Amino acid sequence: MSRLFSEGAIINVGLVSFAEAVTQTGGEAQQVEWTPPAAGDREAGLALARLIKNPLVEEPTQRSYQRYLQSQPVLVGVGPAVEELPGMGDRMLLHAGPPIDWNDMCGPMQGAIVGAILYEGWATSPEEARRLAGSGKIALAPCHHHAAVGPMAGVISPSMPVWIVENADGGNRAYSNMNEGLGKVLRFGANGKEVIDCLNWIGTSLAPVLKAGLAKLGPVEMKPLIAQALHMGDECHNRNAAASSLFFKRFAPAVLETGVPQAQIRESLLFLAGNDHFFLNLSMAACKAMLDAAHGVRGSSLVTAMARNGVRFGIRLSGTGDAWFEADALPVDGLYFPGYGPEDAAMDLGDSAITETAGIGGFAMATAPAIVQFVGGTPDDAIINTMSMTHITVGRNYALTLPALSFSGTPAGIDARRVLDTNIMPIINTGIAHKQAGIGQIGAGITRAPLNCFVQAIKTLSASIE
Amino acid sequence: MSRLFSEGAIINVGLVSFAEAVTQTGGEAQQVEWTPPAAGDREAGLALARLIKNPLVEEPTQRSYQRYLQSQPVLVGVGPAVEELPGMGDRMLLHAGPPIDWNDMCGPMQGAIVGAILYEGWATSPEEARRLAGSGKIALAPCHHHAAVGPMAGVISPSMPVWIVENADGGNRAYSNMNEGLGKVLRFGANGKEVIDCLNWIGTSLAPVLKAGLAKLGPVEMKPLIAQALHMGDECHNRNAAASSLFFKRFAPAVLETGVPQAQIRESLLFLAGNDHFFLNLSMAACKAMLDAAHGVRGSSLVTAMARNGVRFGIRLSGTGDAWFEADALPVDGLYFPGYGPEDAAMDLGDSAITETAGIGGFAMATAPAIVQFVGGTPDDAIINTMSMTHITVGRNYALTLPALSFSGTPAGIDARRVLDTNIMPIINTGIAHKQAGIGQIGAGITRAPLNCFVQAIKTLSASIE
Repeated sequence: MSRLFSEGAIINVGLVSFAEAVTQTGGEAQQVEWTPPAAGDREAGLALARLIKNPLVEEPTQRSYQRYLQSQPVLVGVGPAVEELPGMGDRMLLHAGPPIDWNDMCGPMQGAIVGAILYEGWATSPEEARRLAGSGKIALAPCHHHAAVGPMAGVISPSMPVWIVENADGGNRAYSNMNEGLGKVLRFGANGKEVIDCLNWIGTSLAPVLKAGLAKLGPVEMKPLIAQALHMGDECHNRNAAASSLFFKRFAPAVLETGVPQAQIRESLLFLAGNDHFFLNLSMAACKAMLDAAHGVRGSSLVTAMARNGVRFGIRLSGTGDAWFEADALPVDGLYFPGYGPEDAAMDLGDSAITETAGIGGFAMATAPAIVQFVGGTPDDAIINTMSMTHITVGRNYALTLPALSFSGTPAGIDARRVLDTNIMPIINTGIAHKQAGIGQIGAGITRAPLNCFVQAIKTLSASIE
Repeated sequence: MSRLFSEGAIINVGLVSFAEAVTQTGGEAQQVEWTPPAAGDREAGLALARLIKNPLVEEPTQRSYQRYLQSQPVLVGVGPAVEELPGMGDRMLLHAGPPIDWNDMCGPMQGAIVGAILYEGWATSPEEARRLAGSGKIALAPCHHHAAVGPMAGVISPSMPVWIVENADGGNRAYSNMNEGLGKVLRFGANGKEVIDCLNWIGTSLAPVLKAGLAKLGPVEMKPLIAQALHMGDECHNRNAAASSLFFKRFAPAVLETGVPQAQIRESLLFLAGNDHFFLNLSMAACKAMLDAAHGVRGSSLVTAMARNGVRFGIRLSGTGDAWFEADALPVDGLYFPGYGPEDAAMDLGDSAITETAGIGGFAMATAPAIVQFVGGTPDDAIINTMSMTHITVGRNYALTLPALSFSGTPAGIDARRVLDTNIMPIINTGIAHKQAGIGQIGAGITRAPLNCFVQAIKTLSASIE
């Protein structure tokens, strides 16, 4: 290193071509990676400079972050979407990500919309369902506009049962649909007979069992359950093996106290026991409840939602109300099931990035080294991913600790200012859907939230506090 | 470091006093920690020199290690000890560790013997039970002499139900008793009314449920289940939260197919769900089955048992038959429950070190960073402990991988030669019992297998191959 300070040595910051010019002529240059803040966007950079350390942003950001920390999501029950979701219509379908029209939707989301129409009985064939979806007679809206979140395509229809999670601290409620398992399932765009049959069974057989069991069990605190799962190798986005087991262990004895016929209970328990991802939707609803608690604090640069519709990636800030800040969704870098590859993949999709927004998922993957067998990379990458997220979060959530990092809290509360100041894009663990409707999941991997969402968000936040 | 090679610098290997003499006179000395092999025992050192790289030991050690690797422990059922255990008498009590007389037993083992006598109805008061135990009318024998293992005091009486684990590769069977939970339980020497009531309930209510459920479930392969738990933060000795949950998840739907009354099933599932250590005894029986498969190979220096009776620590080698090589049991360095401290603790106790002998427990603690909240130390210590064990094991078991160490196999198969060559004592995670009878568990921590066991074992092995 002392070489650097001898006569003629050069340290080059930023553009590599300057250093190359030196080395190509026989000189020495030490390259330092650097890019200008705000992805080089001058206007956003100026806005960022105004917002960093600005008490009009600092204080509300901290306040909203405290609301996130203090939230106490509690599972209180199960009910039909049309009865539970605020503003849910009986001819409405919800989808993942920011708003999008039928014609613009990606293949798997269209596939899931078709499946939901068939499930509701609004059409009797996929062709009829497609025509209906494009007719404008079905209202389409983001889950997030109805206090809900759905993984992948995230389609929720009026008859579907939803989890009801309440924030015991603030009283807000959040919802998610039921997890159908892996492979050919609605959320990955599959809509064949077995998919609709499974949805029917979930609605008519599983949901009553869950409802009855939860009534006996009483409210289930989600944060301690997630915390325990984080000590057992889950990151509670793409790995929910422990959380699903922990929920199962509490649920099984309770449901045996209900009057539900034993054979029906057994069938439901077999389904839960066979689906290690069952807890994902509960994790998502819990995260949504935590972040909705933090939403709506004027001036706050805290990110309260990251969601993808398969075409566009959208974020929301606590301080900028209902606005979505969007950019093109990115591809997912991952591992594929046999017979599939990147050319088959849809773009990043789903509301499940609500977990990363809440500090788990990709942000907590240091605690889940085994997940790299599912999403790719190495256990060291997993630790690096978590550590790098500490640069863009407001703090660490000590209700959710990571044993592998000496029990430090998980990096939590994405600050849009820090994202732009560092150009570190939030990391997301996610499933990969086939780009065509009707096929299903083909892999899982890692992706990032596009910087341009944050560029727009910071400009808007800056304008709002002038 | 270049200082070392300049004139007058000294590297001192071994005894610190030589280096101190130099530094006290103003010189410089670099101290290298070293002790002679075989704990400095000349005779054992000479024996060791004969045995290292000796084909008469190398080949059988590898052969026995392969038998351990190839073993396939499968849970096949539950039955009463007196019917299942080979050689179990109807007036016999088994205990942990190497053989020991009643008068020499530590407090918690005497407490457990008294409890077992009360449970069997051979006496009606603790005083009467103590007299009976000391009268010679009750046969006392190590669990290990009857193909069984028991945690802590490890007392197994004729009526107690035992797990039956069969090695599908070799046909040998291994057994363990049922885990009662934490706190005031027989295995920690408690023997009050609630302890005996719990044992009665386990025998009359839980055991039939387990037996019926296992009959429906069919054989349960233990190694994949342990492997999955190792990916979920268990080391399957003092942390069995994941393994217990995984077993529960498979067992619950199966038991609902039996004709057992639903209320009895529910009560049993509640008990299982409430005991994160429930899987410990299954883990131990599985490890015993793996290691018995490797036992009895003439010339092998593979350790096939490490067990403690609370007074003496004993080991067995594959190549030295039924002989125990003993030394005084060591204290446990750990964390204590409120109100207790090291002065209250019994010495290291129990057959549960069979897990470390099989490469899990303390040997696998790198995969279980959360365990340090129970046994003490830091997550870094946990990694160091696993890494250091690689110096004394024959190899790594790639059926049991550790994600945090890039999915390397757990260090497995203790080679007594390597222990003596390095003086690295095998590490053991363990519970801590109160030293008095009748109290129970007061903490958990980490201890080591005494080197002197290995000194004797190597001398005997050396004599056996002359």
